[in-house]
Amino acid sequence: MVPAPRAVVLLSGGMDSATCLGLSREAGFACHALSFGYGQRHAVELEAASRVAEALGVVEHRIVQIDLAAFGGSALTSGSDVPKNRSDAEIGTGIPTTYVPARNTIFLSYALAWAEVLDAHDVYIGVNALDFSGYPDCRPAFIAAFQAAARLGTRLTDLTIRVPLLHLTKAEIIVRGRALGVDFGMTRTCYDPGPEGAACGRCDACQLRLRAFAQLGLSDPAPYAER
Amino acid sequence: MVPAPRAVVLLSGGMDSATCLGLSREAGFACHALSFGYGQRHAVELEAASRVAEALGVVEHRIVQIDLAAFGGSALTSGSDVPKNRSDAEIGTGIPTTYVPARNTIFLSYALAWAEVLDAHDVYIGVNALDFSGYPDCRPAFIAAFQAAARLGTRLTDLTIRVPLLHLTKAEIIVRGRALGVDFGMTRTCYDPGPEGAACGRCDACQLRLRAFAQLGLSDPAPYAER
Repeated sequence: MVPAPRAVVLLSGGMDSATCLGLSREAGFACHALSFGYGQRHAVELEAASRVAEALGVVEHRIVQIDLAAFGGSALTSGSDVPKNRSDAEIGTGIPTTYVPARNTIFLSYALAWAEVLDAHDVYIGVNALDFSGYPDCRPAFIAAFQAAARLGTRLTDLTIRVPLLHLTKAEIIVRGRALGVDFGMTRTCYDPGPEGAACGRCDACQLRLRAFAQLGLSDPAPYAER
Repeated sequence: MVPAPRAVVLLSGGMDSATCLGLSREAGFACHALSFGYGQRHAVELEAASRVAEALGVVEHRIVQIDLAAFGGSALTSGSDVPKNRSDAEIGTGIPTTYVPARNTIFLSYALAWAEVLDAHDVYIGVNALDFSGYPDCRPAFIAAFQAAARLGTRLTDLTIRVPLLHLTKAEIIVRGRALGVDFGMTRTCYDPGPEGAACGRCDACQLRLRAFAQLGLSDPAPYAER
């Protein structure tokens, strides 16, 4: 029997990357999940990532500690306030303070390093352009450009950065994830969870997530501090 | 007086990046030097980087710890042997075991993150294609592709990755560095230094360096364990 080809799958512990991992498994890859501790306020994400990785049957799950807070520049890695209760117009406009400079570039670079060691020719990342909330490093043009750089900068001259969620709405991601058996009760999305890990329900990420479940007439199985 | 524009300069502690820093200072930039502790065997590099940064008058020097050894795949970050006394033909052929997967991609990604926080529109990296010893992530096409990705993935839509050493030989780098007042006695290049920090004189990096000084009729001012 031919062994399954390997893929490196970026896994944050949120619902997008969990669905992305489910899709990479469905596509037949032996999945090596990669998460980062990057000084984020929501470290509860990493516990969620470990639960999701185990539930979906990855070959291996690695958590790499990196210090994005060393440079500052983001509400997610500093003591400054995460914006709450923003309107649709506000969420859809400009680059928010929760943007972490070059985060996806750094994440993809580490994924690339691991892929080269594993001789994995595929890297999955769960970005999506429809709900991307203003982050330039989630745009399709960026992903394509990074793939071009990665092919030139490594032995992996046919590396593919796979973005299966790119054109899905959050509601569509939930539908796909449920069909793949992803337990969204395990996932964590909130930018500013409480001490027990409960989601705030009011940051941009929570608002987008709760609205998507509501659109489907479903209740979000993850714990919230206030609804 | 208009303040000098900022640049992030990758600084390894070797002679190439020291000369690159000298050139970025000469070009009028306020330089923010960035070094990495990445599980390399030659941590003496980082002491060299700090000496060089101070001598050349940077605004700030940061050392970010990253764990490239987590993925394995390189003689530089593992217990395996660094090749010694290789012939010119061997040095010039293929990707050597001292290649660290995706290293420059990761370094440039961190530089990009810091540049975005600083609003620096220039990043310097001291790669050179002539003596590049088989590393794919030193090639001009890779640098150009990374710049394209960086412009798309950040607010820095006019970011320039500057590679002033790209077409210089090691001997030409020494000439330029000396003219800029770089003290090469402070720099460290060796892949496998002794416990006191003395260079081995026999790895690829030492051979290329020693030959360049010899071509110029100069003595390398850095300490060597054996000559």
